[in-house]
Amino acid sequence: MTHDAGCIFCKIVQGEAPSFKLCEDDLSFAIMDINPFNHGHALILSKRHAANVHEIDDDSIAAVARTARRIAGAVEDAVKPDGINIVQANGPGAAQSVLHYHVHVLPRRLGDNAKLNWSLSPGDHDAIARLAADIRARL
Amino acid sequence: MTHDAGCIFCKIVQGEAPSFKLCEDDLSFAIMDINPFNHGHALILSKRHAANVHEIDDDSIAAVARTARRIAGAVEDAVKPDGINIVQANGPGAAQSVLHYHVHVLPRRLGDNAKLNWSLSPGDHDAIARLAADIRARL
Repeated sequence: MTHDAGCIFCKIVQGEAPSFKLCEDDLSFAIMDINPFNHGHALILSKRHAANVHEIDDDSIAAVARTARRIAGAVEDAVKPDGINIVQANGPGAAQSVLHYHVHVLPRRLGDNAKLNWSLSPGDHDAIARLAADIRARL
Repeated sequence: MTHDAGCIFCKIVQGEAPSFKLCEDDLSFAIMDINPFNHGHALILSKRHAANVHEIDDDSIAAVARTARRIAGAVEDAVKPDGINIVQANGPGAAQSVLHYHVHVLPRRLGDNAKLNWSLSPGDHDAIARLAADIRARL
């Protein structure tokens, strides 16, 4: 397992930084987004450090995709959105914010007018913790 | 392999409807989007019919993710975008347009101001055909 010492997502995967964890397997690690665009916004991280879709290995991208499917089901049950986008960003044109491969499970609401480069604003940590517990219980 | 007789993406996968094909493997099939948001916009379809992320099986979602990675690399080489989003939509809130699991490889340009529910407008088929040949040559 390769980690990058300066990477916040590597620190989360290794338990060296806090997160609202949902689940993990050998190659993927799911957490709540602390800057949620909508209620229920989650992230699936590759455990292996890879900057983006061009660097990630086939086994890791497959594991992250399977975990995204599992999390999307639990988020669907927990928050009953009007839709869900699975989104991954690479490079400045896509406003990639952390240079470690991660996939967003982004609940959508009709009329939320989401942009692909949505702006980041911190969520309420107590509310995120309660929602994380609810989502975990549905996995 | 399960197909839905009324589904345009099932018809494409079976060769019963035309497409600008890029590549295929046992479980995934990559084509150009004929309504490109930006130059180089591609789609990866599951060969098995599944309406969305909630219905797709683990092997298919993994195959589509691996093919998306491969296509993203070739699109990166071919059109040199400022970024790439990998995007998948589920349900009306995400404006899912075809009820068959598919992943967008969406080249981004700085300042393109893309929305997640981008509007569809037809591309020039000759230009798409030339770009498809260029992307195929880079796979």
